[in-house]
Amino acid sequence: MPNPATFPKDRLKEIMVDVLDRDGDAALQYGNTAGLNSLREELVGFLKRTEGIDCAPEDIIITSGSQQALYAIGKLLCNPGDGVITEDPTYVGAISAFNANAIRMHGVPPMDGQGVVVDVLEEKVRSLVSKGKAPPRFIYLIPNFQNPTGGRTLTEKRRQEVIRIASEYGIPVVEDNPYGELRYSGERVRSIRSLDGSVIYLGTFSKVMTPGLRLGYIVAPREVTEKVNLLKQALDLATNSFSQYVATEYIRRGGIIYEQIRFNVELYRKRRDAMVRALREEMGDMADFSVPDGGMFIWVTLNNSVDTSRMLIDAIKAGVTYVSGQAFAPNGGHEHSMRLNFTFPSEEKIYEGVRRLRSVILSRAQEAVS
Amino acid sequence: MPNPATFPKDRLKEIMVDVLDRDGDAALQYGNTAGLNSLREELVGFLKRTEGIDCAPEDIIITSGSQQALYAIGKLLCNPGDGVITEDPTYVGAISAFNANAIRMHGVPPMDGQGVVVDVLEEKVRSLVSKGKAPPRFIYLIPNFQNPTGGRTLTEKRRQEVIRIASEYGIPVVEDNPYGELRYSGERVRSIRSLDGSVIYLGTFSKVMTPGLRLGYIVAPREVTEKVNLLKQALDLATNSFSQYVATEYIRRGGIIYEQIRFNVELYRKRRDAMVRALREEMGDMADFSVPDGGMFIWVTLNNSVDTSRMLIDAIKAGVTYVSGQAFAPNGGHEHSMRLNFTFPSEEKIYEGVRRLRSVILSRAQEAVS
Repeated sequence: MPNPATFPKDRLKEIMVDVLDRDGDAALQYGNTAGLNSLREELVGFLKRTEGIDCAPEDIIITSGSQQALYAIGKLLCNPGDGVITEDPTYVGAISAFNANAIRMHGVPPMDGQGVVVDVLEEKVRSLVSKGKAPPRFIYLIPNFQNPTGGRTLTEKRRQEVIRIASEYGIPVVEDNPYGELRYSGERVRSIRSLDGSVIYLGTFSKVMTPGLRLGYIVAPREVTEKVNLLKQALDLATNSFSQYVATEYIRRGGIIYEQIRFNVELYRKRRDAMVRALREEMGDMADFSVPDGGMFIWVTLNNSVDTSRMLIDAIKAGVTYVSGQAFAPNGGHEHSMRLNFTFPSEEKIYEGVRRLRSVILSRAQEAVS
Repeated sequence: MPNPATFPKDRLKEIMVDVLDRDGDAALQYGNTAGLNSLREELVGFLKRTEGIDCAPEDIIITSGSQQALYAIGKLLCNPGDGVITEDPTYVGAISAFNANAIRMHGVPPMDGQGVVVDVLEEKVRSLVSKGKAPPRFIYLIPNFQNPTGGRTLTEKRRQEVIRIASEYGIPVVEDNPYGELRYSGERVRSIRSLDGSVIYLGTFSKVMTPGLRLGYIVAPREVTEKVNLLKQALDLATNSFSQYVATEYIRRGGIIYEQIRFNVELYRKRRDAMVRALREEMGDMADFSVPDGGMFIWVTLNNSVDTSRMLIDAIKAGVTYVSGQAFAPNGGHEHSMRLNFTFPSEEKIYEGVRRLRSVILSRAQEAVS
């Protein structure tokens, strides 16, 4: 969860009142399925400036959060039983969207500090194709500050390689980029979509405005947006009009969105640093983790035999929580890993949480021994 | 489309500002998938008062418009290729939701002034069951001011009969009631759900608040709500939190919602009357229609050979529009019918629109003869 301290409540209040005064009739009415034209126009500028993406308003479909985009892309690009390539571990919401469409996931492990290992990815694609089966329907990647691993960002060289593989085997790439603007250190890497116009790009307002207004978007080639548009009529007719009017003003008005991103980055950088320090001090002897340059999470893998999903109840009793690794496993495993969030709690709570986690792990490990 | 004159912009502005001031952190954050607890609690009272429905907050799932409910129910209750019973004609959004899930629709024609003819419905169910095929997975009905026919409302006697058939053959009833509160004349009929707790009931805020905030809901037995909850995580994680906070206050604050319903009913009654008069005067010689006691539509069937979907382009050129009958046909047909909306245009525009429609029909009919 993003931190509510980052929600620009005063600016939003101002905008909402203005939207009701000026565009109330339209903002409270049904909208068109593809999304509000003015928002799609503002997004063209936003995507160019932040991600170097060239696109037209017609290439964009506004969705009810990027979860809806994941569901729609899964349903449209796959038949039940078809396979897709994902990172392993990968985003729990993608697993849920793909499962709901009876899609088989082929996870690519392991990931090193630079995101998915391209040779392993290519080998996976080749072996699937060579078995004479249908090739995977798409390659799903979260290239920046990957969820859940946080520390893994795909290098530009690897992004280029992914494009080569995708083109060689004729498999579309789905690039999910919820955290791209939340970079606290290191150099920005160009989005895959900015390198190749055939990539299907998923974005969201949840991390740069607020998640409660449920706005995401898809940038995709025309044959995909047309199908998404048709399916979206069946899914929910149209996205919330009022949210879309608010988001339009949020980008338009002297760049409130860019101020917001700067604010978030400053706040979250401190909290990342706090969690990294706490983990080094408290859990350096019992766990591995890598330092994320952005995003919201640190992925911690224990070097003992403690099962994080079995431990969860003890942790909650001790007043600390996490998501256990298995939730992110497209093909099982990750029993000794967990995803920690550093954007929601304060620095003090981060320290205290890590301390409590240490003692829960220790008592679990002792139980296992005795 | 509802008329924007009915949108309570001032009350909504007041509520939105208060929600941001008082509950901003939660209202802009991710919500839980089943929906905001306080909204579900308010709905319990609203449903009891308006529809005589007894239910608990846990029986309710908030959806992103009732379109999402239709999609979810279709997907959860059917496998691809399974059949369902619908009215014929039926709501275009239901057809789209069922088609997206590869569901076969068995329409029950014809409908008389009292809604679906129960004997025909039972015969349809019996014939499907006797063919040794899987029985239909549910019976989908819009019992009040049916969409698109408007004039057809199921009598209480027939509702009781539907319940008997459903129970005899073990087939769930899905009751879609978007227009129930928009009654302009005649006596209210109890909802099917109020007569039988096993009915799956779909409601919406689109016609009693505003459609742009995209809020609908499902009231259903626990085994259905649990499945909907799981699927909804895959579909869009959660419904817009802000909309849900606003809707909660909208019911809670001295019944703004009931004032709003009274306002809508007064406004729409006049427009229905205007359209009925205009149709009698201008099209009495060329079309049949029945007078709806509520809702938003009049279903007009031409008594000549003009095809309404072919005529549409001429109508649009003449500055008048409608939805042609074929859009509502689960199994084809309805070429000579069209759905007219009387809630959006003013009384003057209704008259003018019907006059223009008359001349478009006449010139089409003449072309056909010559």
